[in-house]
Amino acid sequence: MNNQPRPSFKSPRFAQPATFMRLPHTDDLAGVDVAIVGVPYDGGTSYRPGARLGPREVRHQSSLIRTYNSFQKVAPFDRLNVADAGDVDPPPVSIEKAYDAIDARIGQIADAGARPIVVGGDHSITLPVLRALARRHGRLGLVQFDAHIDTWDEYFGGKYFHGTMFRRAIEEDLVDGRRFVQVGIRGPMYGEDDFDFHREHGITVIDIDQVKDRGVAWTID
Amino acid sequence: MNNQPRPSFKSPRFAQPATFMRLPHTDDLAGVDVAIVGVPYDGGTSYRPGARLGPREVRHQSSLIRTYNSFQKVAPFDRLNVADAGDVDPPPVSIEKAYDAIDARIGQIADAGARPIVVGGDHSITLPVLRALARRHGRLGLVQFDAHIDTWDEYFGGKYFHGTMFRRAIEEDLVDGRRFVQVGIRGPMYGEDDFDFHREHGITVIDIDQVKDRGVAWTID
Amino acid sequence: MNNQPRPSFKSPRFAQPATFMRLPHTDDLAGVDVAIVGVPYDGGTSYRPGARLGPREVRHQSSLIRTYNSFQKVAPFDRLNVADAGDVDPPPVSIEKAYDAIDARIGQIADAGARPIVVGGDHSITLPVLRALARRHGRLGLVQFDAHIDTWDEYFGGKYFHGTMFRRAIEEDLVDGRRFVQVGIRGPMYGEDDFDFHREHGITVIDIDQVKDRGVAWTID
Amino acid sequence: MNNQPRPSFKSPRFAQPATFMRLPHTDDLAGVDVAIVGVPYDGGTSYRPGARLGPREVRHQSSLIRTYNSFQKVAPFDRLNVADAGDVDPPPVSIEKAYDAIDARIGQIADAGARPIVVGGDHSITLPVLRALARRHGRLGLVQFDAHIDTWDEYFGGKYFHGTMFRRAIEEDLVDGRRFVQVGIRGPMYGEDDFDFHREHGITVIDIDQVKDRGVAWTID
Amino acid sequence: MNNQPRPSFKSPRFAQPATFMRLPHTDDLAGVDVAIVGVPYDGGTSYRPGARLGPREVRHQSSLIRTYNSFQKVAPFDRLNVADAGDVDPPPVSIEKAYDAIDARIGQIADAGARPIVVGGDHSITLPVLRALARRHGRLGLVQFDAHIDTWDEYFGGKYFHGTMFRRAIEEDLVDGRRFVQVGIRGPMYGEDDFDFHREHGITVIDIDQVKDRGVAWTID
Amino acid sequence: MNNQPRPSFKSPRFAQPATFMRLPHTDDLAGVDVAIVGVPYDGGTSYRPGARLGPREVRHQSSLIRTYNSFQKVAPFDRLNVADAGDVDPPPVSIEKAYDAIDARIGQIADAGARPIVVGGDHSITLPVLRALARRHGRLGLVQFDAHIDTWDEYFGGKYFHGTMFRRAIEEDLVDGRRFVQVGIRGPMYGEDDFDFHREHGITVIDIDQVKDRGVAWTID
Repeated sequence: MNNQPRPSFKSPRFAQPATFMRLPHTDDLAGVDVAIVGVPYDGGTSYRPGARLGPREVRHQSSLIRTYNSFQKVAPFDRLNVADAGDVDPPPVSIEKAYDAIDARIGQIADAGARPIVVGGDHSITLPVLRALARRHGRLGLVQFDAHIDTWDEYFGGKYFHGTMFRRAIEEDLVDGRRFVQVGIRGPMYGEDDFDFHREHGITVIDIDQVKDRGVAWTID
Repeated sequence: MNNQPRPSFKSPRFAQPATFMRLPHTDDLAGVDVAIVGVPYDGGTSYRPGARLGPREVRHQSSLIRTYNSFQKVAPFDRLNVADAGDVDPPPVSIEKAYDAIDARIGQIADAGARPIVVGGDHSITLPVLRALARRHGRLGLVQFDAHIDTWDEYFGGKYFHGTMFRRAIEEDLVDGRRFVQVGIRGPMYGEDDFDFHREHGITVIDIDQVKDRGVAWTID
Repeated sequence: MNNQPRPSFKSPRFAQPATFMRLPHTDDLAGVDVAIVGVPYDGGTSYRPGARLGPREVRHQSSLIRTYNSFQKVAPFDRLNVADAGDVDPPPVSIEKAYDAIDARIGQIADAGARPIVVGGDHSITLPVLRALARRHGRLGLVQFDAHIDTWDEYFGGKYFHGTMFRRAIEEDLVDGRRFVQVGIRGPMYGEDDFDFHREHGITVIDIDQVKDRGVAWTID
Repeated sequence: MNNQPRPSFKSPRFAQPATFMRLPHTDDLAGVDVAIVGVPYDGGTSYRPGARLGPREVRHQSSLIRTYNSFQKVAPFDRLNVADAGDVDPPPVSIEKAYDAIDARIGQIADAGARPIVVGGDHSITLPVLRALARRHGRLGLVQFDAHIDTWDEYFGGKYFHGTMFRRAIEEDLVDGRRFVQVGIRGPMYGEDDFDFHREHGITVIDIDQVKDRGVAWTID
Repeated sequence: MNNQPRPSFKSPRFAQPATFMRLPHTDDLAGVDVAIVGVPYDGGTSYRPGARLGPREVRHQSSLIRTYNSFQKVAPFDRLNVADAGDVDPPPVSIEKAYDAIDARIGQIADAGARPIVVGGDHSITLPVLRALARRHGRLGLVQFDAHIDTWDEYFGGKYFHGTMFRRAIEEDLVDGRRFVQVGIRGPMYGEDDFDFHREHGITVIDIDQVKDRGVAWTID
Repeated sequence: MNNQPRPSFKSPRFAQPATFMRLPHTDDLAGVDVAIVGVPYDGGTSYRPGARLGPREVRHQSSLIRTYNSFQKVAPFDRLNVADAGDVDPPPVSIEKAYDAIDARIGQIADAGARPIVVGGDHSITLPVLRALARRHGRLGLVQFDAHIDTWDEYFGGKYFHGTMFRRAIEEDLVDGRRFVQVGIRGPMYGEDDFDFHREHGITVIDIDQVKDRGVAWTID
């Protein structure tokens, strides 16, 4: 890996092949604390596709990065060695093969001792990420920030798409329902029984009205 | 009418000719409680036209609908028979003929026992809707959510455009000024005398600062 | 079916739920000569997705239709009964299930005695259309207008995507290579051996330079 | 009028309020040979509106102008005094009032001795331009470059819209059919009888195939 | 100057060459209280350029203006004579020459007794505006509403760009640091030493959290 | 350098940080025959800026590359070792410093034995490329494909912008006018004397009409 673990400011923002937050791009994760990895997959989308182009666009927009948070007085890249680990290569025409590719690459990153930050891609990619991490760390706790609960059962006969992955994660014993909190849930549902699965597994929902009424501090508690 | 009065989920969201909220499209209003009808007319616009394409775009975007509100625990399509009643066919080059077409079609819907929900189109289409309803129900009360008061008198010599229809509605005795509330008024006006008509007819204005300061509950009262 | 088999001009172009060329939308194909059917599927795409929204957009844009070709002095809708047969409902997350849905619906149309005109969707949908028709009519001849040959073997381990369907069609004995002509082929390839399959199966290629040099009349011959 | 009758190059192209081809903007037409005038009206449109914003956009894009044609070795602004005469002010909600405003302004320009070049707006504005000019010069000859014949009779009961103005121009005796040539006609029609009016009035059509086959020189003859 | 100092409503909003808020465009500032002047310059931009087209677009969008603020009961154009003074002509390829052109034009406006309101352009243009005003009025106080502090020292060896102008303004003694308040500062910085310059010169920062927590009234105090 | 000198097809087209034609990105030019280098500079633009984002966008769009030209039966990447050499880092706010950075980097590439292919950026960047190459190879011949002659003298007092670089190239003795051919010149000019410089220096112009009339083969001769 490059000796320069911080975002590079020697080039203008718009110059050079874009990486996440202008960080060095590397396949060698030795000494890397945090690996930002793209998952350009949108085959689990039920309406408008295109999220496969998400990692590319996030690389571009994040070239606006600066490195110091003056409110919290913290400079993350001084404390942690962060790198752009490139993208997973998910075959776009098969969700099962895409899941295998994601699972394998997240596993490599975890085995190298780095924490992955994953840039999608549609929501369905969360399941293979949880698979890779649960296999190494055991059943996980999970905090999900989302409008939708994404615990439906299936979609036109398919078990895997961007609205089912958290049901699968509970069924596959990857996530502990009692340590699973969904924050910000809002918008229309299909019916009251959409929440049966939550009651059965002890999943906590903090909907958007609660967040607004009680504030961010209460939500964090 | 189709025996399936609820939005259809047998097709993916992006499939089939788009209807309002994936509801059945029908010309037969027997048994329909609520008829959603498009009014693709923008000939009353004083600046940027294009709202004639509004009903088509609303049909597309509303294919994202789900049917249950988990905050209010209500599933409107279980309680009411709702349909897409198609569009009025307003001739785009004459506001008077467009008004007649709108008035006639809204009247048909009301006579069939359905309540119309109208998707425009520019604001000027409100006048023929009020004409059709007032002819059947007598002078109406009205709650208007808007940035603009839309009670000006005329525009380049024309009595009908998207800024005059509520003055016309009072003058034509369609709306009772004392039961007419305008909520959310904001932005620049032409002068203090813009409100003379309100004072004369007892129209209530709750401007946006009042809504923000006193809250939604007070506004509803 | 509606008694009015021609495009409807009683509404302005921008009004009413959009259908292909403003034709009547019907599920009942009795007496229909030509059924225009949408296949909103793009799960076989190797680069930019979005063609699943193609049938909707074609419905919109085709509202500009007029019905008489003054060069050829022909009014197709006077000679043939043409209808918008709606869309196939292909599940977006599985190409195999999508293929089955397409095959079944094209078969229904053919069995009803109508000729299908298919509006995609990505190119991969051609295979199940050919399957449905070859099962009924035997091995088919085919004229393909395209930039790409789309006879590659596989893509990241998948046999089905938008670059392999004509190889599959030959392998599945749906198309007779000696009666298969590809017109307009252009742009870069991967290597000279891309054409081995053509030589083996007697497929004819008329590339874009030949079309330009020799003219349209020669190409038709 | 400004003493500088040529486009101004003292400012960068993107600076200063935009005028047609960076020409001086003036209401005083004394000594002006050619007056470029905008007609921001689109109330005669049968499908997508927005042409009312045309003159503004043409002013912007034409700031790319340079003044010498090296092929024809001519510098038009050296030979003729050309000015941006501003826009007509057509009320957007009434085609009859818009026609009157256009007719009056084109008449003023003609009376001042300038030749008008009109930037629309939709095609319907041609009729009042022809009215103003025919009143002064008698029955006119006309060469029309267009895809459509625009000699239909009416549209949803209206005599004036962007597909009828050349029929009106013949009926109102503004244009001599025998000196009226339509060049470039193409695209679908409604029927062979669309040309009855042409035969009756001796209008010449040179369709796009003729232009392509016989060349520009033949067309000019 | 034109005798009509108020925005003109005799034309529809979309008609006539666009000026700031539909005000008269004049080069003659006699009797003008407030001159709105465009500075179409973006050569000081470190990321996405295009602000040189800002004055043109602001002219367009501001044609939506109405003239009376009903909340504050004030009609500014009745109290003050306001005009569109056109644009400065900054050469786009040299920031030093652009600065000279801006300084000169703002000076002319000030000398004519008008107060300039400047529409950019990128932030770097603030420096020559301050130069012109400080030369006439002495060291200035300044209230800056911004996300960024813009007091960095240099950028790839250049002293002038859109992140350094307030440091230059202090160094050139144009602004009194103790009467310089920055309101709304937010977003990431490069390090805590970004604020050393503020401490040295007594610049006050009210960051966005303070504005939100304490309210607008406190901020104004 | 990477051992894989050909475009990489192991990832889907939309995956991984984008490089020119999916080639390996390297700073080490040993053994590289052709170095594709971006020059993200648009400070020489006289109208609409944004070309500084050109190299990024070309990297994205060129991920559609395939490697074999079946018309010419050539696979360039089999014959030549081609790499993405990254971008020059031109400071955006000074054309002189940008020119120095471009000159230096093109010189490095030439000294490493690679031929540079330069992706801009605006046209003004051609001058420092010619400087770097002429210093090494002596006075150059040049074939320019362009609409504009770009041999004007200055622009608002500046010698360097995107319309003057070929005059500078002749004046600095970088290019031999008698071996300088401009192909495709079209569009308006400022006057006949725009070509005086061509006559003086023996520059050949083949305008677009000649290319169309005589064909591509004659033009190559």
